[in-house]
Amino acid sequence: MKDFILDYERPARIGLGEAIFCAGKTPAQIDAIIADAERRSSLLLTRLAPEVFATLETSHLLDYDPLSRTAFLGPVGTPDKASLEIGIVTAGTSDLSVAREAARTLQFNRSPFTLIADVGVAGLWRLLSRVEDLKRMKVIIAVAGMDAALPTVLGGLVPGCIIAVPTSVGYGVAEGGHAALNAILSSCSPGILTVNIDNGYGAACAALRISHIAT
Amino acid sequence: MKDFILDYERPARIGLGEAIFCAGKTPAQIDAIIADAERRSSLLLTRLAPEVFATLETSHLLDYDPLSRTAFLGPVGTPDKASLEIGIVTAGTSDLSVAREAARTLQFNRSPFTLIADVGVAGLWRLLSRVEDLKRMKVIIAVAGMDAALPTVLGGLVPGCIIAVPTSVGYGVAEGGHAALNAILSSCSPGILTVNIDNGYGAACAALRISHIAT
Amino acid sequence: MKDFILDYERPARIGLGEAIFCAGKTPAQIDAIIADAERRSSLLLTRLAPEVFATLETSHLLDYDPLSRTAFLGPVGTPDKASLEIGIVTAGTSDLSVAREAARTLQFNRSPFTLIADVGVAGLWRLLSRVEDLKRMKVIIAVAGMDAALPTVLGGLVPGCIIAVPTSVGYGVAEGGHAALNAILSSCSPGILTVNIDNGYGAACAALRISHIAT
Amino acid sequence: MKDFILDYERPARIGLGEAIFCAGKTPAQIDAIIADAERRSSLLLTRLAPEVFATLETSHLLDYDPLSRTAFLGPVGTPDKASLEIGIVTAGTSDLSVAREAARTLQFNRSPFTLIADVGVAGLWRLLSRVEDLKRMKVIIAVAGMDAALPTVLGGLVPGCIIAVPTSVGYGVAEGGHAALNAILSSCSPGILTVNIDNGYGAACAALRISHIAT
Amino acid sequence: MKDFILDYERPARIGLGEAIFCAGKTPAQIDAIIADAERRSSLLLTRLAPEVFATLETSHLLDYDPLSRTAFLGPVGTPDKASLEIGIVTAGTSDLSVAREAARTLQFNRSPFTLIADVGVAGLWRLLSRVEDLKRMKVIIAVAGMDAALPTVLGGLVPGCIIAVPTSVGYGVAEGGHAALNAILSSCSPGILTVNIDNGYGAACAALRISHIAT
Amino acid sequence: MKDFILDYERPARIGLGEAIFCAGKTPAQIDAIIADAERRSSLLLTRLAPEVFATLETSHLLDYDPLSRTAFLGPVGTPDKASLEIGIVTAGTSDLSVAREAARTLQFNRSPFTLIADVGVAGLWRLLSRVEDLKRMKVIIAVAGMDAALPTVLGGLVPGCIIAVPTSVGYGVAEGGHAALNAILSSCSPGILTVNIDNGYGAACAALRISHIAT
Amino acid sequence: MKDFILDYERPARIGLGEAIFCAGKTPAQIDAIIADAERRSSLLLTRLAPEVFATLETSHLLDYDPLSRTAFLGPVGTPDKASLEIGIVTAGTSDLSVAREAARTLQFNRSPFTLIADVGVAGLWRLLSRVEDLKRMKVIIAVAGMDAALPTVLGGLVPGCIIAVPTSVGYGVAEGGHAALNAILSSCSPGILTVNIDNGYGAACAALRISHIAT
Amino acid sequence: MKDFILDYERPARIGLGEAIFCAGKTPAQIDAIIADAERRSSLLLTRLAPEVFATLETSHLLDYDPLSRTAFLGPVGTPDKASLEIGIVTAGTSDLSVAREAARTLQFNRSPFTLIADVGVAGLWRLLSRVEDLKRMKVIIAVAGMDAALPTVLGGLVPGCIIAVPTSVGYGVAEGGHAALNAILSSCSPGILTVNIDNGYGAACAALRISHIAT
Repeated sequence: MKDFILDYERPARIGLGEAIFCAGKTPAQIDAIIADAERRSSLLLTRLAPEVFATLETSHLLDYDPLSRTAFLGPVGTPDKASLEIGIVTAGTSDLSVAREAARTLQFNRSPFTLIADVGVAGLWRLLSRVEDLKRMKVIIAVAGMDAALPTVLGGLVPGCIIAVPTSVGYGVAEGGHAALNAILSSCSPGILTVNIDNGYGAACAALRISHIAT
Repeated sequence: MKDFILDYERPARIGLGEAIFCAGKTPAQIDAIIADAERRSSLLLTRLAPEVFATLETSHLLDYDPLSRTAFLGPVGTPDKASLEIGIVTAGTSDLSVAREAARTLQFNRSPFTLIADVGVAGLWRLLSRVEDLKRMKVIIAVAGMDAALPTVLGGLVPGCIIAVPTSVGYGVAEGGHAALNAILSSCSPGILTVNIDNGYGAACAALRISHIAT
Repeated sequence: MKDFILDYERPARIGLGEAIFCAGKTPAQIDAIIADAERRSSLLLTRLAPEVFATLETSHLLDYDPLSRTAFLGPVGTPDKASLEIGIVTAGTSDLSVAREAARTLQFNRSPFTLIADVGVAGLWRLLSRVEDLKRMKVIIAVAGMDAALPTVLGGLVPGCIIAVPTSVGYGVAEGGHAALNAILSSCSPGILTVNIDNGYGAACAALRISHIAT
Repeated sequence: MKDFILDYERPARIGLGEAIFCAGKTPAQIDAIIADAERRSSLLLTRLAPEVFATLETSHLLDYDPLSRTAFLGPVGTPDKASLEIGIVTAGTSDLSVAREAARTLQFNRSPFTLIADVGVAGLWRLLSRVEDLKRMKVIIAVAGMDAALPTVLGGLVPGCIIAVPTSVGYGVAEGGHAALNAILSSCSPGILTVNIDNGYGAACAALRISHIAT
Repeated sequence: MKDFILDYERPARIGLGEAIFCAGKTPAQIDAIIADAERRSSLLLTRLAPEVFATLETSHLLDYDPLSRTAFLGPVGTPDKASLEIGIVTAGTSDLSVAREAARTLQFNRSPFTLIADVGVAGLWRLLSRVEDLKRMKVIIAVAGMDAALPTVLGGLVPGCIIAVPTSVGYGVAEGGHAALNAILSSCSPGILTVNIDNGYGAACAALRISHIAT
Repeated sequence: MKDFILDYERPARIGLGEAIFCAGKTPAQIDAIIADAERRSSLLLTRLAPEVFATLETSHLLDYDPLSRTAFLGPVGTPDKASLEIGIVTAGTSDLSVAREAARTLQFNRSPFTLIADVGVAGLWRLLSRVEDLKRMKVIIAVAGMDAALPTVLGGLVPGCIIAVPTSVGYGVAEGGHAALNAILSSCSPGILTVNIDNGYGAACAALRISHIAT
Repeated sequence: MKDFILDYERPARIGLGEAIFCAGKTPAQIDAIIADAERRSSLLLTRLAPEVFATLETSHLLDYDPLSRTAFLGPVGTPDKASLEIGIVTAGTSDLSVAREAARTLQFNRSPFTLIADVGVAGLWRLLSRVEDLKRMKVIIAVAGMDAALPTVLGGLVPGCIIAVPTSVGYGVAEGGHAALNAILSSCSPGILTVNIDNGYGAACAALRISHIAT
Repeated sequence: MKDFILDYERPARIGLGEAIFCAGKTPAQIDAIIADAERRSSLLLTRLAPEVFATLETSHLLDYDPLSRTAFLGPVGTPDKASLEIGIVTAGTSDLSVAREAARTLQFNRSPFTLIADVGVAGLWRLLSRVEDLKRMKVIIAVAGMDAALPTVLGGLVPGCIIAVPTSVGYGVAEGGHAALNAILSSCSPGILTVNIDNGYGAACAALRISHIAT
């Protein structure tokens, strides 16, 4: 009996490609999943640590990115120009690995996107210089750790849908990203949405669900 | 000098009507805000407890709903039929006060909506009997407390954007809604979004931001 | 004086074979326990990490399984066909190491069991396709991490006794399994039981206690 | 549209009578539920606070017990002698309200039970004097707050299935029952099961699920 | 023997007038303290709840402010113009009771101050319109609840010393002010200082310690 | 069947008089306990809130102290001069209710004691002026809330046995006494012992156990 | 300037030999401390990890025990027969490293002791067979992890002073020892004392303080 | 597009040199930042772990200190004698790495400072022997872990501004520094300020902001 059941009908049912969360799976389990999927479907792999990737027998089949710890199985098409362009902004440079997980998920699902890095509000001029660009974006994934003040400021400046992603960057009370998550959930700006800490994949999936409404 | 600064430009800037969070404000402060706003703007008041409402000098100016603890100042128009219809579902009857805060926020902003109550997945047949309706909804606010399993099941069944609202219904480890919030943030379904515990207002504002994209 | 006291009367007293929790014990202590038990009793060893197993002087005496980190000392009989068959289900592939700890504990105690993997409710069709099988099971060990919604849905569908095991699979607020545990404890389904996070051994012992009632 | 959906098929599906969790519901909602159920089904109401009970229009239809905050709607039959007798033990007198919630749930479902109060292990002789009785019980609901050491000691003495219920009795680190819950989950005795803090109802439902296996 | 020891030498030792924290003291204890101090010293009383104030026998000796729950015993001089002027800013109107505790503490110690209310960064224009004023302030007490993003933005805009006071305004994860406190401690702006949640008194004392350096 | 079992043999077994923890018990249960004990034993009642005391039918039998919420049933003898004198010190006036629970427990068990109030180390001179007295005390119960720095300083100054009692005095992060408890547990002074938050009764019982060794 | 100040007067002041907590110190700092103390005093070193010990230049001067991670600098005398004999009991074998830290601290301070291992109450017969021995002990250090039920049971059986040491043995909710600590603090047995998790050193110091009273 | 935006105007705007928090950044990102800054500005790098420093291509450009994990890029001037001298005190030797992060930040910004190590209040004489020195210091950074009682005692003895830095030294409930942080926030001494756990950099920046007021 197999240890897993892949959901090949998921794109038809909810519009998102099948993805595998690799943390907690053994290399043998991941190899078996890839073997199952190889001929039937493309696949997004997330949380695939470099040291696990290195031990996979199927690693040659994958397009792997170590910063975001994601891999693509199978061909990934070009962005669909008819789709909404999704904005991704980060508060700091340390948030980029999470932002890139979101970006890779969008790429896998053929959604166009723009990434703007390091515009945290401790240096407010960096954000204010980009406000006009941000006002034009309909969906913005805002990636921020530590005090995660960026989504709140952004939420008061732009009318688009904001999906905040808290990151686990930081130490002391910021360690693990709980301070960032709670700050976002407590935001004084109306209508800020969020996902789990470091969940760039989930933020991108939500952006895709919204993009599908508008297109 | 005034104790408050109302944001009359907010609708123009981000498309959401001005709202006042009343918890933590004295009746005198709320009365002063209402007096300031009365001739210039309509206003949504949230977290206005019945016992505070009863002591307001300006209570006669308000359209008050005790279940959701919300009030409208000024006329509220009819739903804008060109807008997306927002779905609101609740896992249980106890989640209705939060669902109604969302509904009142949508009503204040002239958004159409449909509310489906008590379809929690501990009695799965209740949800399955409504799946076809839910598949047609582009944005669903899913209100659930305790283990908050509803958004996860829903997220695997329908393609729309799901905004989950954890509620503080429950006792023991469920008290305060943290178990529900954490379950939602940990959801195995891709692309589930969330807001703070009991934050029906915030979920509705997010739904409005999304609705504005699509219309 | 010895550092440990083995409980050779436990099977007679409570019907469960003696087991040793190896985490926190030095290899020398484990070796001494095995030497003490070798001629008098069979023994189940749990939480025996591969790197500790590799350093044991008595490792050649053990039947070791690295995925579940369990070992058997002494012969283990065939399943007792007169016993209840215990069901084990997992929400995901990552939950298999915990499920296997339960399965090995059942095997050690000669209880028959069936394991069904990867039927989490984010893809509800996977569970629904097995409902008839599950309705026939009298005792089900349901292993689930992250939001752990599986036991709740199961609890509304089947009449059997459900022992949920939260797992530490996940990240962010799911890290360590506390979100899963709290979701299970807050379940809206009546009569869901639980044990500590990742405690496949304990769930199996409870299933055996129940099995002894019925047989 | 109704605010609630009663599950009249639940007894057929999972063998447990329909029950309503009243905390978080308004008196009007509870009255409406009772009116809906009155002619079709008996009903168990839990967490019905005395001050809410006093304001119900339908209170005359209920058999109410203030200590356990439970009520019965409709006739409740005599215990079914063919069923297993369930044991209920409490560590202290303060745990009796929770024990009684369990007892009333068993009574509502026609299960026989025996309650033994105040046998906590800080005075071990109290428990030891009852060990022979307890060894004969197949299912024991063990209700304990504070350090909740009772289930651990019991688990080493008797072969039956033990469902521990942590209670919120206590102050300081014991407040809210989390210390009791965590002690139970960490129990050194093999196969101790648990439910949410103060969840006498859930423990009884689990006992009924087990009782149905054996009969 | 007396239940208390007043510290009449404190002004000489550390430059701050004696203050009494009234929460947790009985009215009789507070009355005895006031009787002891009456002829020898002026006194600041903090956390003196209106319902306790109303039962004091010595209430006629006090200058009481209910919003901040503070009282003065004895004459309070006019501000010392040679001192630094301390700025107090609040993110919202609900933060005013804490801001006022700070202001009353400054007044009691004869420090000049300016209070600017409701300039939270969810409506950034409110803060930006006051930036020039804030740049001139050498010490700023920044009072903010919920996500407490104000101190971070302020810290990047102005060179003065910023003492952030998290407030317990909010609900869900913001309840009790822990999200605000943690956001402040995690601030990306360099050199933001903080005190306990709602501790307007402590923030003012710290501002006075700094003011004493500069004058 | 009775709801309680009194432990009349406890003094003989462990040297401490029987005591009843009243929180969580109904007045009827407390009355029944008192009726049971009245002719056979004296009794200490703790956590007996004034509003519960006022409703007892047996209140006329009790020697009640509202500050410590304790009562004596039956005659209490004079202090036993052959026993060690126990020292009780408090950091602040607000800690007196807990200190008095300890004092009343000592009095009930006929142990001599001395209480020194309000010597917290934020005003170090208060403690230093009493150091010689404290050096002579063999057992000191040190009651302190908030940052609870007193036991640490004391532990470095005196050779006696120090039993620290954290109190729930305080707000923000100090609320509930957890900061005080954790500070005590983390003390840099060697050999500081502790009990639960606000547990003056437990500290006194421990002091009695130690006193019995020395006498 | 030196990085440390040794307290050579401590034995005279509080009766305990100087000890160094090595965790968080660099090898160079530890070497410098040992060099400073070498000629003037004996020294106890705690939390000296094997991998740090291995890098010390002064390791040849030390009597090192890897299980307890303690070392002695300088000669340690034989036990002082006039002192109280301290009992040390452990609930399990995994608690031995902590018990040994206590034992080594007693040895360093020349106190006699007896260690009884693996008498946890999940197998109650193990404890009951030793009760008469334990009743004779005046001070007992009870080391227990997981649910830490041993001190509670012991406290009801014996009259001596009980110092419970929670250990960090365990996983899930038991991880880090917080469940054990909280269970001990919540103990239903009167007069159980405790110290920080895994703090065998502190428990021994407290036992020494008590021993000094009695001798 | 670059992954980072350096803030070369920060010294002019808020008076503090640009600093880079290296934790969470890849070596490639840090190298790119250094390359960008090399010709335009000096730079402080914090949280630069030795193993990351060792892999930098630009490491030869840096003045690196492993104890504090800080590096300077570019020339650092001599202390500005016109500035306030900042005091740094530590409770223990283990707090020195954090104290040194503060010292290096002061050095980078050309502020004079004095460091006094190991004066924790468990050996009070160490602090008392330095009180006169400490009374003369206008700003004191007090670094303390575990129970962090030092800032409280200091705050009652000296009139200067005290910035307490909790450290993550410790184990059990002290682990991670939360007990120290909460003790500081709960301090009974008036006007103690704090920053995040281990945040020597932030404490120094705050001291610099204050120093700029006075000079």
